[in-house]
Amino acid sequence: MTRRQCSIADALGVVGEKYSLLVLREVFFGVRRFDAMIRNIGAPRDILTARLRHLVEAGVLEKVPYSQRPPRFEYHLTDAGRELRPVLLALMKWGNRHLVDRPPVVWKHSCGADLDPVLVCHACGEEPVTGSLTPRFRDPGWTAAGLSAD
Amino acid sequence: MTRRQCSIADALGVVGEKYSLLVLREVFFGVRRFDAMIRNIGAPRDILTARLRHLVEAGVLEKVPYSQRPPRFEYHLTDAGRELRPVLLALMKWGNRHLVDRPPVVWKHSCGADLDPVLVCHACGEEPVTGSLTPRFRDPGWTAAGLSAD
Repeated sequence: MTRRQCSIADALGVVGEKYSLLVLREVFFGVRRFDAMIRNIGAPRDILTARLRHLVEAGVLEKVPYSQRPPRFEYHLTDAGRELRPVLLALMKWGNRHLVDRPPVVWKHSCGADLDPVLVCHACGEEPVTGSLTPRFRDPGWTAAGLSAD
Repeated sequence: MTRRQCSIADALGVVGEKYSLLVLREVFFGVRRFDAMIRNIGAPRDILTARLRHLVEAGVLEKVPYSQRPPRFEYHLTDAGRELRPVLLALMKWGNRHLVDRPPVVWKHSCGADLDPVLVCHACGEEPVTGSLTPRFRDPGWTAAGLSAD
């Protein structure tokens, strides 16, 4: 079976496991140490250990020592990790709109406004709406419907 | 233990399970029927069945009958489902930049450009960069670091 080649699926292979994006949320908040992450996320220790290892191996986080004796590390975002900010903000906006009465967190942007994150086309500045996007596939045989039979 | 109240965590409760966002990707491609989703995603049937049920219950997809005998359904995006487009596009962009040599899919926008999706502040039009966002918490006691001890 040939599944659709897709960067969304690939990205979810890195950050799609339960708790991975919440780890990144904590690091964006400036929470970089294991025990504080455990408290704020409410995740089991063994699972969070596995998620952190995976995120480090994938180049999203890096381990930085803050104590030699005993050896202790904290987790910092790499450039690739920082570039996941739009994913988190898009999820936050959706959750705020559809799942909660009032946003638990409001982000003030340096422009002075409370952040309302919108995803726009870099070329024209407009939000892509239904019907405005047409896919082109690299792999021969693939269409929007799937792999064609011929 | 009091975990951080967070719309990202809430949103992941709806779309954060393995294959859920790939189901939505397929519906955005116009693939609305179970067997075609199975082929394109490469997911086990029982898991995809559970994901579809959860997405319908959460109001992200709706079942629309297309045959009476036998009874057959296809899955359509609700308004809430369509508003997940930015999440998928942000993940796609990140995967394209960090995980693949060449994008497997390029989306042509109706403005004429190949889509480069950027997440900007609605008020000022700029991308939020590191250090430009300051969180305000609704629940007393919470800070960026976590629940304060006092």
